[in-house]
Amino acid sequence: MKQNLDIYKKKTSRSAELFKKSKKYHVNGVHHNIRFFEPYPFVTKSSIGKFLVDVDSNKYVDYWMGHWSLILGHSPKNVLSHTKKQLNNGWMYGTVSKNSIDLSERISKAVPVAEKIRYVTTGTEATMYSVRLARTATKRKTIAKIDGGWHGYTTDLLKTINWPFRKSESGGLTDEKHIVSLPYNDLENSIKVLKSIKNDLAAVIIEPVLGGGGCIPATKEYLIGIEEFCRKNNSLFILDEIVTGFRFRYGCIYNKMNLDPDIVTLGKIVGGGFPIGVICGKDEFMKYANTSTLSKSSRAYIGGGTFSANPLTMMAGNTTLSKLKNNGNMFYRKLNNLGTETRKMLDKKFDGRVITTGIGSLFMTHFLKDTIYEIKNATDAAKCNTKKLHDYHFHMIANDGIFFLPGKLGALSSVHTKSDITAMAKSTDGYLTGFKK
Amino acid sequence: MKQNLDIYKKKTSRSAELFKKSKKYHVNGVHHNIRFFEPYPFVTKSSIGKFLVDVDSNKYVDYWMGHWSLILGHSPKNVLSHTKKQLNNGWMYGTVSKNSIDLSERISKAVPVAEKIRYVTTGTEATMYSVRLARTATKRKTIAKIDGGWHGYTTDLLKTINWPFRKSESGGLTDEKHIVSLPYNDLENSIKVLKSIKNDLAAVIIEPVLGGGGCIPATKEYLIGIEEFCRKNNSLFILDEIVTGFRFRYGCIYNKMNLDPDIVTLGKIVGGGFPIGVICGKDEFMKYANTSTLSKSSRAYIGGGTFSANPLTMMAGNTTLSKLKNNGNMFYRKLNNLGTETRKMLDKKFDGRVITTGIGSLFMTHFLKDTIYEIKNATDAAKCNTKKLHDYHFHMIANDGIFFLPGKLGALSSVHTKSDITAMAKSTDGYLTGFKK
Repeated sequence: MKQNLDIYKKKTSRSAELFKKSKKYHVNGVHHNIRFFEPYPFVTKSSIGKFLVDVDSNKYVDYWMGHWSLILGHSPKNVLSHTKKQLNNGWMYGTVSKNSIDLSERISKAVPVAEKIRYVTTGTEATMYSVRLARTATKRKTIAKIDGGWHGYTTDLLKTINWPFRKSESGGLTDEKHIVSLPYNDLENSIKVLKSIKNDLAAVIIEPVLGGGGCIPATKEYLIGIEEFCRKNNSLFILDEIVTGFRFRYGCIYNKMNLDPDIVTLGKIVGGGFPIGVICGKDEFMKYANTSTLSKSSRAYIGGGTFSANPLTMMAGNTTLSKLKNNGNMFYRKLNNLGTETRKMLDKKFDGRVITTGIGSLFMTHFLKDTIYEIKNATDAAKCNTKKLHDYHFHMIANDGIFFLPGKLGALSSVHTKSDITAMAKSTDGYLTGFKK
Repeated sequence: MKQNLDIYKKKTSRSAELFKKSKKYHVNGVHHNIRFFEPYPFVTKSSIGKFLVDVDSNKYVDYWMGHWSLILGHSPKNVLSHTKKQLNNGWMYGTVSKNSIDLSERISKAVPVAEKIRYVTTGTEATMYSVRLARTATKRKTIAKIDGGWHGYTTDLLKTINWPFRKSESGGLTDEKHIVSLPYNDLENSIKVLKSIKNDLAAVIIEPVLGGGGCIPATKEYLIGIEEFCRKNNSLFILDEIVTGFRFRYGCIYNKMNLDPDIVTLGKIVGGGFPIGVICGKDEFMKYANTSTLSKSSRAYIGGGTFSANPLTMMAGNTTLSKLKNNGNMFYRKLNNLGTETRKMLDKKFDGRVITTGIGSLFMTHFLKDTIYEIKNATDAAKCNTKKLHDYHFHMIANDGIFFLPGKLGALSSVHTKSDITAMAKSTDGYLTGFKK
């Protein structure tokens, strides 16, 4: 691995210099903890199509794709031209705009639960407000999440994110007792936990594909079982589809699973890579956010925020969804198939030493270790050899201009082609050669 | 007032139609509670310079200015051309960019407390993380804020926002007991409250000009007194300058008040109207956010977020600050003077029936009522006739194409001129004529 370090350092000298400056100004040099990797992350100069370009003019085929938000790649033509036009017409009205109505028309058609929609600026805000709504609607306090579930940085859900899920995730939290955590894809034991807090359970919040926790789809039985419990228990069933919404099909993944969530959060793709968070929900719950009809004590005070529904994000979202819609089923079929091919290729290359999890265009390679033979939850994922995954990703960055954020799942976009997968296979061969040495 | 309603409805028929649609899709038709006003808010089609233009092609001279974030007006030339260029080069890297280093270089020069900076996407996030940092650094739990202080929607500060400050601001809050509230500009009684929670006081957070609470500057003595208490008590002193940063001078308002805060939050202007929140702080406290050097139990897990430090916002911020810096002191002197003139004009027109509070380019007209003779805190502001303020603002919207978000403070930007103030004076005359009838 020493060799990869040398190669990387040699070709990223300008990045090294600039990152030193970034460390002077910024905590650990970054603005999102996961963006740091050793010895230093390269500094990006520009991006276009499938490429990130760093300040030393190295080009990387990007599988990080803006935290998985860019399903059409970097600066796709239509979104580029429409957002430029929008800039001429203003980027910050602070008032109602037609753009937001248009976007909601699109989303509500594709996502039936979106009887009412509220746009906020980030995923963190969307989950915070969803939880607040659920607590208000049910007059209960406890929220159940998943071991390894990631819903952003909100105080209300900052628990059991990193294995082994026992310690606090952070200093400065004052009320962790109203968050409980469930073992993913283990219905029996999850129900046991839920039953133990029965009368105070406001909601369960779940990512249908565990993202940060290891790119692991929930089983249909698991989600249906949890939803059933919520229904009987008068608790809300919240699906966090910030990563999965419009990722595998035009709409959410829940639509295809016979699920009927009460609230769904969206983000990433529906803003075309511009800042967005979305709370979609049934009228009977979203009505609690209405400050015009409800008094302080009975309403949920939810955002908003200064930048909510800004016309630029709304325009980017509209153009992205319009493109996805017009491209039809073929678009997603092609993208999902490329994902299947990628997973197969990786499993084959590593010949039993890894499991590549994921679904559709999302995939993540887990290096097996000890007694792990399957990856069904974040504990399994965490028990794998995560250092090897970092090394593997770093090998591809250093040698072959292929970028995964080290340790994170990869996302394919419409700009990736079979030849990119072939290049990834080749780079993997190179990694395996070093591996054998 | 019936007459104004008729005038407004007549000229905004397309807005009426579209807002009906917006209500179908959105809670109360809006994405920020305060953006709703009766009978319905107009729907904006575009904005340019000092104008908002609605879908019926009515033009409004805008004093809301994107929640006060647009100090150079809508779509200023330089910001427009630079952000367009940035779009070509990508809007979402999800990695380190030079743009963020450049912006931090500018901010840290102007804001000495910014020894370390972290960019987030909204003001709500910035205050949430500041509070989390303070609790982590001090190993204490209680945060003191101001009666009527507004720091966004974060769960950690959602208390005592609306007068009379006694009831919960929202359903769904599970830990209000770790937030206490202080009477603004009343040092003696504030210190009494602080003393009562002495050993658990993590921080005090204050806006140096109370924004949502009524556009009321803190007295220098008040801020110095609170800071002194914090220093002696080993509590952090946090200034929320999201509204005031780069509003009155190139830098913060605290720099001119002999204050030495531990953390300062910024937003709005420093992002040029693009989504941003900033946490600036001393090394000794910001270091708690470093996930590379600290273990889970001793660190503060702060964002970040997908859109943090995105290159588009960073570019807009850089261009805006560069413009403000190059324009020199003259820029702010002119803007602040126009504010003084506006306040004087309004006080004169209303001849003792209002007090126009504010400082520099921010101003708000309070209609006096009962026993209120001065506006020194949010209670005084709330006891004024806020309905009259709404009516007055609505009068200007309906009759004269002048837009204040009804009931909110106004902000001047560099695109406003003396002739705009003359027009506002004229519209005020018209309102007063109706008033006398």
